[in-house]
Amino acid sequence: MDNFQFWSPTEFVFGKGTENEAGKYVKKHGGTKVLLHYGGGSAIKSGLIDRVRKSLSDNGIEYVELGGVKPNPRDTLVYEGIDLCREEKVDFILSVGGGSVIDSSKAIAMGVPYDGDFWDFYTGKSPEAALPVATILTIAAAGSEGSGDSVITKEEGGLKRGAGSDLIRPRFSIMNPELTCTLPPYQTACGATDIMAHVFERYFTNTEEVEITDRLCEAVLMTMIKETPRVIADPSNYQARANIMWAGTVAHTNIVGVGRQQDWNSHGIEHELSALYDCAHGAGLAVIMPAWMEFVYKHNVMRFAQAAVRVWGCKMDFENPEATALEGISRFRSFLHSIGMPINFEELGAKKEDIPALVEKFGIGDGRTGGFVALSAADITEIYNIAANASL
Amino acid sequence: MDNFQFWSPTEFVFGKGTENEAGKYVKKHGGTKVLLHYGGGSAIKSGLIDRVRKSLSDNGIEYVELGGVKPNPRDTLVYEGIDLCREEKVDFILSVGGGSVIDSSKAIAMGVPYDGDFWDFYTGKSPEAALPVATILTIAAAGSEGSGDSVITKEEGGLKRGAGSDLIRPRFSIMNPELTCTLPPYQTACGATDIMAHVFERYFTNTEEVEITDRLCEAVLMTMIKETPRVIADPSNYQARANIMWAGTVAHTNIVGVGRQQDWNSHGIEHELSALYDCAHGAGLAVIMPAWMEFVYKHNVMRFAQAAVRVWGCKMDFENPEATALEGISRFRSFLHSIGMPINFEELGAKKEDIPALVEKFGIGDGRTGGFVALSAADITEIYNIAANASL
Repeated sequence: MDNFQFWSPTEFVFGKGTENEAGKYVKKHGGTKVLLHYGGGSAIKSGLIDRVRKSLSDNGIEYVELGGVKPNPRDTLVYEGIDLCREEKVDFILSVGGGSVIDSSKAIAMGVPYDGDFWDFYTGKSPEAALPVATILTIAAAGSEGSGDSVITKEEGGLKRGAGSDLIRPRFSIMNPELTCTLPPYQTACGATDIMAHVFERYFTNTEEVEITDRLCEAVLMTMIKETPRVIADPSNYQARANIMWAGTVAHTNIVGVGRQQDWNSHGIEHELSALYDCAHGAGLAVIMPAWMEFVYKHNVMRFAQAAVRVWGCKMDFENPEATALEGISRFRSFLHSIGMPINFEELGAKKEDIPALVEKFGIGDGRTGGFVALSAADITEIYNIAANASL
Repeated sequence: MDNFQFWSPTEFVFGKGTENEAGKYVKKHGGTKVLLHYGGGSAIKSGLIDRVRKSLSDNGIEYVELGGVKPNPRDTLVYEGIDLCREEKVDFILSVGGGSVIDSSKAIAMGVPYDGDFWDFYTGKSPEAALPVATILTIAAAGSEGSGDSVITKEEGGLKRGAGSDLIRPRFSIMNPELTCTLPPYQTACGATDIMAHVFERYFTNTEEVEITDRLCEAVLMTMIKETPRVIADPSNYQARANIMWAGTVAHTNIVGVGRQQDWNSHGIEHELSALYDCAHGAGLAVIMPAWMEFVYKHNVMRFAQAAVRVWGCKMDFENPEATALEGISRFRSFLHSIGMPINFEELGAKKEDIPALVEKFGIGDGRTGGFVALSAADITEIYNIAANASL
């Protein structure tokens, strides 16, 4: 196990009706003037935003609002949010939504006290300060409610890049699984895929003897395999929604990934797809991650066999561990298909002829990237090709 | 899943050499005048306390010292610590040791800003303030480095009682597995037993459909089953020590126990043993917990069968799930025996004739207690009897 530092100071408030405590928790965590940041449509129509407004007012918390966050959140709205916070002397950002809204909030939070361009934090610079951020989560997916990460898309040029700092870990996150019971199956499945991908990015590692985090990763994956089909079959299943929601947080606070090298190439390779086609991140991952696995599994056949046996319930083929490894990958792709995810470029709406442009935008040049297997531009091209042509 | 609130704001600093960063982290978390609280013997002889003193001095942190914490930490030293902190205007408590030292620190932390007797917090009162506490952990066991719990023994009358509050969750915990590599096998096994007991207290629940926390509990248990025999065989095995250390923390921050009713009778029943005989808490748990399981398993045979199959690797007997449930309990006791733990009163050094006194001291009267099965005084008597007479 490698040395590590782990800090997840977020207060999680989980369960039915908890969004009505938003004002109480803003006050507890020191907020007095809030930016209420959200997407649009459903959070307003469902009455959620009204309930949050009421809770803030009931607790004497002033607020200004900025809606309109889109999936794959844009830098343009972040700049608008930074200006608004400065003008209105906002001291706390409350995000109501999924990963896109939360990530947009985190970007604004870093931008407000910073003299330069907030985009600096998405190109390698570490922030020295940030406004406090909190969340009311409406979809189990990105894990941003418990992470120190944020991903933003630069509208000009469609660059999608990530930032990370403990300073943007939410102060509190309100998580009511009821709010996710109205999500359609496709969005639900995209979220589930993202959660599983967050675990697999950590699971495939070159760090040896990390049994505790291996087992914790497997715990989250097995939960997702059990619970996701239940919510696809019955979107209003509260218990399954609750299990998935907590799994999504545990998957990405990094408690299951500490002390081990992680990979994260699948996320990077996918980001180019959702930046170019504006597809859902989870759908892109469903196409990319099994393809990545097929490309890299020979690097450590026994680790892939372990996943196949422990997570997917495959029988170990002791004469041919490689067959077991491949069976695990095949079960993953079949599972994704069974919950309604695309498994190749055509189903995703991506085009093979764009592959050179995707690789170019990935921007790796002559270098290599990734913690499990360091990939070159040629390797990434090959992974896009496998993804393009995949079938069950 | 039940509604829950979960807050684990501790910054964990894990790995080789991390104790040398103690001063840096005290400064980061706002301490200026520290009470350095520890046990005695090994932490001084090994040079650990000297390294911590140096780190504090190097960072310009003033400190006063209070050593002498014993296993099953006493109220008498807590009173001494409270007086010392007030006299010296201490604003931060740094505990160097295991659960006993940390729990003593937490008691002092609550006592300093409180007008009344700190013991009030161990008989039901909630604290409104506490000095910040941090830890440098020297044994994987109690999980106190990541929990909001503390257990103290009142010297007069030998009462052992617990307190809990988010206010006493450590601000940071420095965890260097190297510091545990010199622990003898018996203490190591006591710690491992305590870790497993913390998980089982949460695992046996009446809350239905809690797959994510079931799986996380099982992950910790399977890790302990793999790694504990490795450190018993080779105490200097750093990797196994590291896995156990992180497992011990994960077991007791409550991340694996949120949203579900928990039991905790085995801990209460054991506390009377360690209060009366001053035996190690883990050793007492090794005798009590399998006995408790044998007494209660009929309450939910399928849950015990699940543990047997998923954790202990038993084959499910579909014609006779009860046989599978009992096999799991039997494997637990055999495992404890294999790592050198006592499995009955004689091996622990307890006496059957004390059972009425133990039950009397438990103080339940005509009531019932426990989250999985509500036990009466007669039930507790029977569990002590099973524990007294247990064999492999």
